[in-house]
Amino acid sequence: MARVVVDVMPKPEILDPQGKAVHGALPRLGFTGVTDVRQGKRFELEVEGEASEDVLASVREMAETLLSNPVIENYSVRVEDDA
Amino acid sequence: MARVVVDVMPKPEILDPQGKAVHGALPRLGFTGVTDVRQGKRFELEVEGEASEDVLASVREMAETLLSNPVIENYSVRVEDDA
Repeated sequence: MARVVVDVMPKPEILDPQGKAVHGALPRLGFTGVTDVRQGKRFELEVEGEASEDVLASVREMAETLLSNPVIENYSVRVEDDA
Repeated sequence: MARVVVDVMPKPEILDPQGKAVHGALPRLGFTGVTDVRQGKRFELEVEGEASEDVLASVREMAETLLSNPVIENYSVRVEDDA
């Protein structure tokens, strides 16, 4: 059993209204010193067996077809050690 | 300038309908071998100056009060090297 994490973030050139909303709320809550916020998604996938190159290739295909919209989002896939 | 990442995930004992929906869709798309999916949020914060202990404490407070709902979600804060 291995855990694979897929991070999906809006591309830098794409407007991110959720991130902007968070960024706008911070000063109102008394937080300063944050110059930008981007909000994306994080998926944790539990996969059977080892996180082999085949498994990671399959997860990259999932990220491309289901977990992200490649027109407006970038994704990254990595294996996480079980905590 | 430093980038601090806040990951927010539903607590293990909390139902995660988004993750369940993704998990249910995978076999229909021909993907097998994934036993569970959890979906959460990822925030990337650009902060002024160094990611000092003070800055990280402040980001943890943001995570607690704005970025997560501590009743149903866990968060983790970490510094990310600029890619």
